Amino acid sequence: MSLKNMSRAELEEFYAAAEKEYEDLKAKGLKLDMSRGKPSTEQLELSRPMLDVLNSSTDMTDSDGIDTRNYGGLTGITEAKELFAELLGVRPSMIIVGGNSSLNLMYDSVQRAYNFGVYGGSKPWCKNEHVKFLCPVPGYDRHFGVTETFGIEMINVPLTKTGPDMDMVEKLVSSDPEIKGIWCVPMYSNPDGYTYSDETVTRFAKLKPAADDFRIFWDNAYCVHHLCDNGDTLLNIFDEAAKYGNEDMIFEFASTSKITFPGSGVAVICASENNVKHITKQLSMQNISYDKVNQLRHVRYFGNADGIKEYMKKHRDILAPKFDLVSSKLDKALGGLDILSFNVPNGGYFISVYTLNGCAKEVVKLCAEAGVVLTGAGASYPYKKDPDDSNIRLSPSYPTLDDLSQAMDVFTAAVKVASARKLLGR
Amino acid sequence: MSLKNMSRAELEEFYAAAEKEYEDLKAKGLKLDMSRGKPSTEQLELSRPMLDVLNSSTDMTDSDGIDTRNYGGLTGITEAKELFAELLGVRPSMIIVGGNSSLNLMYDSVQRAYNFGVYGGSKPWCKNEHVKFLCPVPGYDRHFGVTETFGIEMINVPLTKTGPDMDMVEKLVSSDPEIKGIWCVPMYSNPDGYTYSDETVTRFAKLKPAADDFRIFWDNAYCVHHLCDNGDTLLNIFDEAAKYGNEDMIFEFASTSKITFPGSGVAVICASENNVKHITKQLSMQNISYDKVNQLRHVRYFGNADGIKEYMKKHRDILAPKFDLVSSKLDKALGGLDILSFNVPNGGYFISVYTLNGCAKEVVKLCAEAGVVLTGAGASYPYKKDPDDSNIRLSPSYPTLDDLSQAMDVFTAAVKVASARKLLGR
Repeated sequence: MSLKNMSRAELEEFYAAAEKEYEDLKAKGLKLDMSRGKPSTEQLELSRPMLDVLNSSTDMTDSDGIDTRNYGGLTGITEAKELFAELLGVRPSMIIVGGNSSLNLMYDSVQRAYNFGVYGGSKPWCKNEHVKFLCPVPGYDRHFGVTETFGIEMINVPLTKTGPDMDMVEKLVSSDPEIKGIWCVPMYSNPDGYTYSDETVTRFAKLKPAADDFRIFWDNAYCVHHLCDNGDTLLNIFDEAAKYGNEDMIFEFASTSKITFPGSGVAVICASENNVKHITKQLSMQNISYDKVNQLRHVRYFGNADGIKEYMKKHRDILAPKFDLVSSKLDKALGGLDILSFNVPNGGYFISVYTLNGCAKEVVKLCAEAGVVLTGAGASYPYKKDPDDSNIRLSPSYPTLDDLSQAMDVFTAAVKVASARKLLGR
Repeated sequence: MSLKNMSRAELEEFYAAAEKEYEDLKAKGLKLDMSRGKPSTEQLELSRPMLDVLNSSTDMTDSDGIDTRNYGGLTGITEAKELFAELLGVRPSMIIVGGNSSLNLMYDSVQRAYNFGVYGGSKPWCKNEHVKFLCPVPGYDRHFGVTETFGIEMINVPLTKTGPDMDMVEKLVSSDPEIKGIWCVPMYSNPDGYTYSDETVTRFAKLKPAADDFRIFWDNAYCVHHLCDNGDTLLNIFDEAAKYGNEDMIFEFASTSKITFPGSGVAVICASENNVKHITKQLSMQNISYDKVNQLRHVRYFGNADGIKEYMKKHRDILAPKFDLVSSKLDKALGGLDILSFNVPNGGYFISVYTLNGCAKEVVKLCAEAGVVLTGAGASYPYKKDPDDSNIRLSPSYPTLDDLSQAMDVFTAAVKVASARKLLGR
């Protein structure tokens, strides 16, 4: 029965039961962390054999005959460019292979645009009195951290099941030259797990920005991170953009952080040749080369894009049961109560839930007091401000199934308590 | 006999002989590169066993029990901090272990100071109408590239055998609040190979900057890179600075780029705890963690600082004969002619030579035309402008002894030709 349809007496009864359930769980003194999208140790173990790929008897030259151990090769080794180009469906000349962190590549891309400008732009972003970014919400907290750091004003755009509200995006981008970028996680979005529809991608590809230095930050973090056999598909934005002469408008990012080792993977930026040339020049002031040995290690381990796609099934086998557990726990404990909604995604790392308005902070607080650390409420919004105080990002990847099960019990109890309090006006 | 004391007829004769020598060498059609301080393949081979240190059966947890393969640990693993702290004679709490590039750490340090400010500073550097850096010359071209990129005005300070002209440094730093930093390579300076004297280090340590956000960029790139048994010693600037309450004034940098693999080493920034805390907060917007697996690989390979120091003797055995060859070739071909001066360094990667004023570009051009690529004349000066057109940086590390010998023949012939032309007014 929906809590909203309950009489006051029924609600009081529900609340008392929920309180008891919660207090009993709290008494267990749990200590569980499901705050970040961190792969589990079991997943890390999958990549152990990668540590054997290069050893003291290995030929360390790349396919161009260059010694990967020495300085040079700022944009990465050829076979790594080819591997990621195949994976992302672009030309190898569109790839710069970076270090271990796509976040760092994104930060650097904002930093360079801010201080020095982008290809085709008339001046650096910082020479504008005011700089704005569109932020589909909820979104990835670290994206918003980057733009906030540079003092860039962030404007919320609602994310729907088909992607950002494109009417709003088109209207704002085409009319306001102070808008210089938009953060997108187009596939298995963080945290909702939505994949942008073909129409959305196409509308992005044909945007007509008022600014001459606008960029779409296309963070394709979960491009091969399916949780089921028939995963989502994402239209190739570069193919679409080429039709409208808009290839220069896109910076795409990806990494192997959630494929091999999160701290020791390989990240890439993918962009038009004009952009790559421009970025490479700016980058040459910053670095001599990224870790080409690790690039070689990854390429030799996977061979090709199919090697990566096949490999991801092993991750899925570990992750899918955790996502199933979360959604079945939510259904079982809260189904029909009408106090929590969520999407069961086909891939990615998160399950994003929506409490009654004004309850998210309370739920996170109750969970913390019972020993279960969640991502902070509001974290998925610019300035950490969820206007509805409703969204919570659940990260099921790191805990074991047992721990996750206990954590979800705490979580559902906390949702019941907070919702009842809200409806009772306490 | 000194060229300057020759009669015109003697000089003409000398020139004709030099021209012939040069043309004969040019006819050989050489193709040699001694433009950068790149370790040779033989040196890279020294570190091959490092590729076996971590394999699929290795325990991948660090000394704190943290899995190095996963996200987290932004400032590096504890044992890596301890290793570099021991090497640099500082506290582990003063170390942030970064990625593969100290240049990148320096660039980032300038970028953060420029956009967001340093610990204790009243505002970001960019909020000043004008920002200046002192640049001891000749110096490292990539340092100057970083400051030039950010539009920071660079002021030349002469480098002497004991370090920068400290009278000038003290006067400028204490009087001009627009001066926000100075680039230093205090040990085996790039390119001259001088090590700052104790007095110089002490005077740096007690600087009283007019700016509240001044930083010494102490690039200790060659701290263990001796070429002889009794290498130079450098006073520990942090120990000295502590005496004057000036520890916050210093950013020190180092890396294993010229110890293990240049493209795949580990770099560090070393600074006071106040700075480390401040930097870490800024850094947390940029990166989740650097490559901790590679940090672990390095620590397990070397064990401790003595392990690194011992290891460097193997590099010395390869490098010292090359430096000896260069200096003996210079002595033999040009000794007594009074047209070239140079320092034979006790360590580092370069031999810096000084031609007659106005001859450096000509020498580099002549060498290039005969197939020997040198570092561009002027590269060691801000804006690539050597006011005397006299300095050339020779990098003997990469070529084989045979190639180096041929390259030096071309070089000395080119010096003779250019000098004679200069003195003959051609």
